[in-house]
Amino acid sequence: MPVKTEFLHVKTCGNTDMIDITSSVETVIYKQQIKEGVVVVSVEGSTASIMNIEYELGLLDDFPQMLEKLAPSDGFYKHDEKWHDGNGHAHLRASMLGNSKTFALYNGEIQIGTWQQIVLVDFDNKPRVRKVIVQILY
Amino acid sequence: MPVKTEFLHVKTCGNTDMIDITSSVETVIYKQQIKEGVVVVSVEGSTASIMNIEYELGLLDDFPQMLEKLAPSDGFYKHDEKWHDGNGHAHLRASMLGNSKTFALYNGEIQIGTWQQIVLVDFDNKPRVRKVIVQILY
Amino acid sequence: MPVKTEFLHVKTCGNTDMIDITSSVETVIYKQQIKEGVVVVSVEGSTASIMNIEYELGLLDDFPQMLEKLAPSDGFYKHDEKWHDGNGHAHLRASMLGNSKTFALYNGEIQIGTWQQIVLVDFDNKPRVRKVIVQILY
Repeated sequence: MPVKTEFLHVKTCGNTDMIDITSSVETVIYKQQIKEGVVVVSVEGSTASIMNIEYELGLLDDFPQMLEKLAPSDGFYKHDEKWHDGNGHAHLRASMLGNSKTFALYNGEIQIGTWQQIVLVDFDNKPRVRKVIVQILY
Repeated sequence: MPVKTEFLHVKTCGNTDMIDITSSVETVIYKQQIKEGVVVVSVEGSTASIMNIEYELGLLDDFPQMLEKLAPSDGFYKHDEKWHDGNGHAHLRASMLGNSKTFALYNGEIQIGTWQQIVLVDFDNKPRVRKVIVQILY
Repeated sequence: MPVKTEFLHVKTCGNTDMIDITSSVETVIYKQQIKEGVVVVSVEGSTASIMNIEYELGLLDDFPQMLEKLAPSDGFYKHDEKWHDGNGHAHLRASMLGNSKTFALYNGEIQIGTWQQIVLVDFDNKPRVRKVIVQILY
């Protein structure tokens, strides 16, 4: 079967914590010695996402700021009214970003460029351990 | 060929109607008895999307509210000026969310967690029957 | 190996320039004579995205206008404060849209509908030549 699946377990601080998981994903690829294919990275749960961004301090501040406009962390949400867990904004942000991203693998390298990383972002309002699924189709 | 393709035809009410299609997608998987792979769910057309969200009444109200800020249904759009179909906001929302989502399949289960669903969202301003494409790569 | 990878090199004007690459993607598919599978289209770099939209003049104006609200091109970004390249908004927009999109291929046709196109969007603030990766899993 031309699918390899591996799991990562990643600790986060929540609150739109962004964690660079590129090297962990690359380790899965190198271990399998797969040179060409497609890499799908997913995270389980409805308050986290996988995204791509240049992982540098400025953008690590700018990106959450932008999301504050779209889905403010102190906004009013019907979700919170019922469940009282105060993470309505986390659900909305995670739905906008999606729970997986797909990357091209060629010549043994993920085709994202030097200045870009694969990032787990946890929007929930508390620390979590996230299950990340790395799959290679080849 | 390690690709299975099936089609669903789903009635919607339009106007950012969100429909839980998780069990329909799972039925395709179970019927094929595939345990490990990648599931791609797509919708045809430029005014609908596939998304992931916790499908509960609060968020079913919160999510469209957020999109009202981003692309208001009563906003001015050049698209409407020319085509007079009044669905410019629907196109913009669909482009932001994308026409497909990709999910990890492992041990016969879609790896999204218990409190998350696969959802067809129809942004158009009228009822439609949507063609959803479910594909399993394994 | 059931993966075909091809590269396109596409000139852009930057500044949220949107370029219809549907026919180029279709050419890759037709050349390979693949009838059923999944097509992944990716772009290298952290200031560009692949998206789907009805490619018509109205929306080509409406879509960038919406992004001006979300991540204004004249906004303040910490990224720019450090790197002085003035493209902080481009990084944020590219992260929201993602660096790849996945499409269903069935009966030799991409299942997006007649009125929708596959589009490369370059958010950077200068002309670029973009490397687009087209992959078919079948």
